[in-house]
Amino acid sequence: MIDMIAATAGAGSGILRAIGDDCAVIGREDGRVWLLTMDTLVEGVHFNPDWHPPELLGRKTVSVNVSDVAAMGGEPRFLLLSLALPSGAAGRWTARFVEGLAAACRDYGCHLVGGDTVASPAGIALTVTAMGEAVAERVLYRTGARPGDTVWVSGPLGLAAAGLDLFRAGLGQDEEALRPLFMAHLDPRARVGLGRRLAASGLVHAMMDLSDGLATDLAHICRQGRVGARIRAGRLPLHPGLARAASLLDRDPVAWMVSGGEDFELLFTTAAEDAAALRELAAASGHRVHAVGRIVAGQGVVLVRPGPDGREVEEDISFRGYEHFSAGNRN
Amino acid sequence: MIDMIAATAGAGSGILRAIGDDCAVIGREDGRVWLLTMDTLVEGVHFNPDWHPPELLGRKTVSVNVSDVAAMGGEPRFLLLSLALPSGAAGRWTARFVEGLAAACRDYGCHLVGGDTVASPAGIALTVTAMGEAVAERVLYRTGARPGDTVWVSGPLGLAAAGLDLFRAGLGQDEEALRPLFMAHLDPRARVGLGRRLAASGLVHAMMDLSDGLATDLAHICRQGRVGARIRAGRLPLHPGLARAASLLDRDPVAWMVSGGEDFELLFTTAAEDAAALRELAAASGHRVHAVGRIVAGQGVVLVRPGPDGREVEEDISFRGYEHFSAGNRN
Repeated sequence: MIDMIAATAGAGSGILRAIGDDCAVIGREDGRVWLLTMDTLVEGVHFNPDWHPPELLGRKTVSVNVSDVAAMGGEPRFLLLSLALPSGAAGRWTARFVEGLAAACRDYGCHLVGGDTVASPAGIALTVTAMGEAVAERVLYRTGARPGDTVWVSGPLGLAAAGLDLFRAGLGQDEEALRPLFMAHLDPRARVGLGRRLAASGLVHAMMDLSDGLATDLAHICRQGRVGARIRAGRLPLHPGLARAASLLDRDPVAWMVSGGEDFELLFTTAAEDAAALRELAAASGHRVHAVGRIVAGQGVVLVRPGPDGREVEEDISFRGYEHFSAGNRN
Repeated sequence: MIDMIAATAGAGSGILRAIGDDCAVIGREDGRVWLLTMDTLVEGVHFNPDWHPPELLGRKTVSVNVSDVAAMGGEPRFLLLSLALPSGAAGRWTARFVEGLAAACRDYGCHLVGGDTVASPAGIALTVTAMGEAVAERVLYRTGARPGDTVWVSGPLGLAAAGLDLFRAGLGQDEEALRPLFMAHLDPRARVGLGRRLAASGLVHAMMDLSDGLATDLAHICRQGRVGARIRAGRLPLHPGLARAASLLDRDPVAWMVSGGEDFELLFTTAAEDAAALRELAAASGHRVHAVGRIVAGQGVVLVRPGPDGREVEEDISFRGYEHFSAGNRN
């Protein structure tokens, strides 16, 4: 469907990138660009109001969109919100939702400027359009990864997916060690500051945000760059809470890290020799980045992990991330 | 809710108008502005797939958004689409929907640049964000109506509402005379060309598009201009098909014209002495405009019609248009 839309969209004046990256990119005459993105969260698909406090859902609705702007190296400016609510929806719920949304706007330095409110026959649906800005020549696209590049992620992976699975199982909600997992699902933060610093550094070849899981998102970077990638399971940043969740639910923590989705960390590649500079840059802005693998000639994303007999096992995990209904490609 | 969002949105750099008009207005440095609007159409609330061919629904999804841009005197440039589809949705339906959407983009000269596709647990929901452009000093707002102004509409009213009622009653679908009513509901057209000419003319004091019915939309213009309005029922442009539908369904055609909603004609005011110039301007672009009443000092929208005894009866119809679920104020 996305491909069909892309084919019918046509190239208009000023459109530097349409569908196929984290944001559409519209050129301006002052050397900057507009970044446009839109994301929908649907009750029963993306969130469950029983365990999602409305303030945090308001924050998340903003964050998932702002994350797409961050993934291009931009800063968010304006938002529009469409709120589809069942006719029985409580005014108190809406007020708390809007409170969280407004707080997130303040945190990210962007402004809600419009939208629509409509009736929904079944369940809440939340759509936000974010409009951001960036310096044209610093925008980071999904294309551009080169063989030999180091593959980086900006934080621990799989937390949100594991938190969601714990919510669904009704387990662990009183364990302090698991709180980061629940919060990763309820209240993810977009990496705007780090994204801007990475864009300004000139060190990054390709970047996107992790929304559909490393296996799928890195496969997009590989496909667009006509390259492959090798990820080492032992290099994936394992949060101690994730190990605990894995034992509680009898799950493989690597599966969550590779396929979980909704990490909203940044995924990017740089030349291998820039690793030290990269770590310094991230540390200077309070982040720790993790080198999880490398870009290779060829295609596909291969996960390398120790097998039962101690020898390394390789597995093609391309596009085996969390799959949204009809397309792994979110814009 | 809209008021609450408006209060929490804050005034950011470059925001000339946030919530409260057809579009948000963002200033640029070249004397032009960006116009931003977002509208959602929900299955079972705004459309019924049983009688709405997907191509026409695709067109309408674009048109209702472009109409908001037209209502400020702007031209549409970029669109984003969020498509929430039940998991059983047919690929053929989606292909036809996208075909109609792409055709409408071509007609209006705008481009689909991004969006999102998500699963919907129940029914289709379609959200579009439109980004348009206009010359800053020519933008037409809802504010600005003055006592003595003539109130104009750009075409016949009530057709879409009557067409929808006929669909619901399962009546009249084989009558050629009623076809304009069905088409007004299925495939409304945004008045982009007329809107731009009206903005360029400098004659118009206040303008918006008719989406919630004359009674509600004119009440917005009155409230924002701190004025009142008197509408004469006999001046409302009565389409012959509407009279036929009224007799089929035993309804009052004036009620459809005043309260129907989804007309997507332009509603605007000018000084009374500019009436001739206005009609000429409209005729030159192939439109016929109708003077339906006037702006008066005071407040509220009054409908004047002949009573049973031949004397005039006055009725306050403020905000008695078709009410969307939670707010009459669409942006």
